[in-house]
Amino acid sequence: MKTKEMKARRINIPAQAIESFIRDVLVMEKVVSSAAGYVARGLVNTSLRGVDSHGIRLFPHYLRALKARRINPRPKYKFTKTSPSTGVLDADHAFGHAAGMEAVRRAIELARSAGSGHVSVKNSSHFGAAAFYALEIAKRDMIGMSFTHADSLMLTHNGKEPFLGTNPLCFAAPCEGEGPFCLDMATTMLNFNKVIQSRERKLDLPPGTGTDKDGNVTTDAGRVTNLLPIGQYKGFGLSLMIEILCSVLTGMPYGKKITSMYKDPIEKRRRLGHFFSAIRIDCFEDVGTFKKRLRQLLTDIRNEPRKCKDTAVQVAGDPEKASFRERSVKGIPVSLPEWEALVKIQKEYGVSIGKVKYAKT
Amino acid sequence: MKTKEMKARRINIPAQAIESFIRDVLVMEKVVSSAAGYVARGLVNTSLRGVDSHGIRLFPHYLRALKARRINPRPKYKFTKTSPSTGVLDADHAFGHAAGMEAVRRAIELARSAGSGHVSVKNSSHFGAAAFYALEIAKRDMIGMSFTHADSLMLTHNGKEPFLGTNPLCFAAPCEGEGPFCLDMATTMLNFNKVIQSRERKLDLPPGTGTDKDGNVTTDAGRVTNLLPIGQYKGFGLSLMIEILCSVLTGMPYGKKITSMYKDPIEKRRRLGHFFSAIRIDCFEDVGTFKKRLRQLLTDIRNEPRKCKDTAVQVAGDPEKASFRERSVKGIPVSLPEWEALVKIQKEYGVSIGKVKYAKT
Repeated sequence: MKTKEMKARRINIPAQAIESFIRDVLVMEKVVSSAAGYVARGLVNTSLRGVDSHGIRLFPHYLRALKARRINPRPKYKFTKTSPSTGVLDADHAFGHAAGMEAVRRAIELARSAGSGHVSVKNSSHFGAAAFYALEIAKRDMIGMSFTHADSLMLTHNGKEPFLGTNPLCFAAPCEGEGPFCLDMATTMLNFNKVIQSRERKLDLPPGTGTDKDGNVTTDAGRVTNLLPIGQYKGFGLSLMIEILCSVLTGMPYGKKITSMYKDPIEKRRRLGHFFSAIRIDCFEDVGTFKKRLRQLLTDIRNEPRKCKDTAVQVAGDPEKASFRERSVKGIPVSLPEWEALVKIQKEYGVSIGKVKYAKT
Repeated sequence: MKTKEMKARRINIPAQAIESFIRDVLVMEKVVSSAAGYVARGLVNTSLRGVDSHGIRLFPHYLRALKARRINPRPKYKFTKTSPSTGVLDADHAFGHAAGMEAVRRAIELARSAGSGHVSVKNSSHFGAAAFYALEIAKRDMIGMSFTHADSLMLTHNGKEPFLGTNPLCFAAPCEGEGPFCLDMATTMLNFNKVIQSRERKLDLPPGTGTDKDGNVTTDAGRVTNLLPIGQYKGFGLSLMIEILCSVLTGMPYGKKITSMYKDPIEKRRRLGHFFSAIRIDCFEDVGTFKKRLRQLLTDIRNEPRKCKDTAVQVAGDPEKASFRERSVKGIPVSLPEWEALVKIQKEYGVSIGKVKYAKT
């Protein structure tokens, strides 16, 4: 590392540069070009939206998974249309981003002719942020929903071990004058990345968010191994609902039987399931009227009286929209270890990320 | 009141008796017989499932709303099929239970031919428990979902007033060897009925569930006027998602513009919206396999190690299933004030509920 880099606490990478880099490296690894494009776009888009846990920092892990053949670089998708509005996609162990976008494409196609489209996916892998898919649907003036399951991490309600995962759900709908409304949330209070960050920074976790290995609530990030669901049995129920859509409906393993992203051998296939829905807005309301009304609703909420005058009332997705605007200009900030991992890949493949900016913090 | 009744702390009414009573009284008020049947079945079924907040105790209020013409006894539904899998129902200010079941019937019909069916409802009223509808869909070997909005009660995240309601969501799916899995939950930590009960019993509320009128968190049930969402901004986002489905998509009022169930004049129409989805399981998986797999998943969770050995690990809907079994035999318990309200209706209409059981507690 150069001295200049060592001194910089923050390194900002332009979105375009890192997107090309990820795509090019994947193509050099014989990944089919459309899949490489989806992975690159999905990770970069997520980083731009400020969701660093599911953004470009995952690329080195994805690359290892690819080289170990957890991921199939040239999958043969098998899509079966099962009714005018439904279909099943066997993703042949593709990258989750590629499998997800293929399913979204099919769901949109079904919705165009049948009013709504629902596609389940089997034999997939980690698909990154759920918002990537629901937003793609919302761009077509449809309501988009995306779901995935994940390996055990949520403490079972009244239990002392985790069984279900942080199983997220995402809902997106188009809005006038701004990007789509987008709610993308894990069903746990926190994601595990937050625990790791707090460990590194020697910070306590907020109360009621995690437990130790025996299921005892603690704010000590170093001892937290299990995450608590939102609203106790309610979040546990939501996670179970998502497990039903992604594993019971698809035949994929569930709960403790799911291959762990990091703890299991990297060559072990994950066999994850997802579920996507696209519902055409014009089948219920004039699209222009819907968008205008949604904009008004969001504006009314943002204008509600604040609890603390310095803290804005926001709706889901507002922080991500602000981050997107900022990072589209300033680039995506990465930590030094993250940058070092990328530099290693640059050298290995002889592909350059190009110009990055160094910012002192 | 007779001495025997005054002494009894709990009165149990057989389900059949109260269902006939409710239906007969509504028919005497010129409610169309199918609607009267749905209201009676919906309220009784909900009480049997132990969800007293949304059960037969609502009947006197419903009757007042009917007599004041908030509710239209003989609605003319207008259903428009808008695509193979979607439709819009204008419920003409019917009872919410009747409007909801009409929408469910249509959603099931759409799903039979198109794989899935989605129906939005406008100009409806309070529909009781969301589970009534999703369970009806699940009986047809489909995944059932139901949503409604409600008047302002949830504290806005970072705000100091309520804007959105307790907006519930429900998801149901058929299971082998037992009733369908059913998650029916408000997006607030508690429902307001729990606050009222705690006031009556001079009990504190659990921490982090409610705030006073200035948005300050308190456990003092007497001062709680606003309810907190599950998982802070996450539950707020879920409630907003449901508001979008039920008001932005239907054209019904939202947030603070929604007529309050109790605070507004009883003759004022509520103009509520709902949203229902039915998704055929056989479009994704063999129905028998799905049900067997779901049963196994639920069993695996129930068998997870317990945190306290006396507290069972349950899944959403388990307490309701236990209550249904018990109350189907012992009858539905009502409080003395609830019983008195029913006695008054008995006298007014000359219709008898029949034999009730008195149990000392």
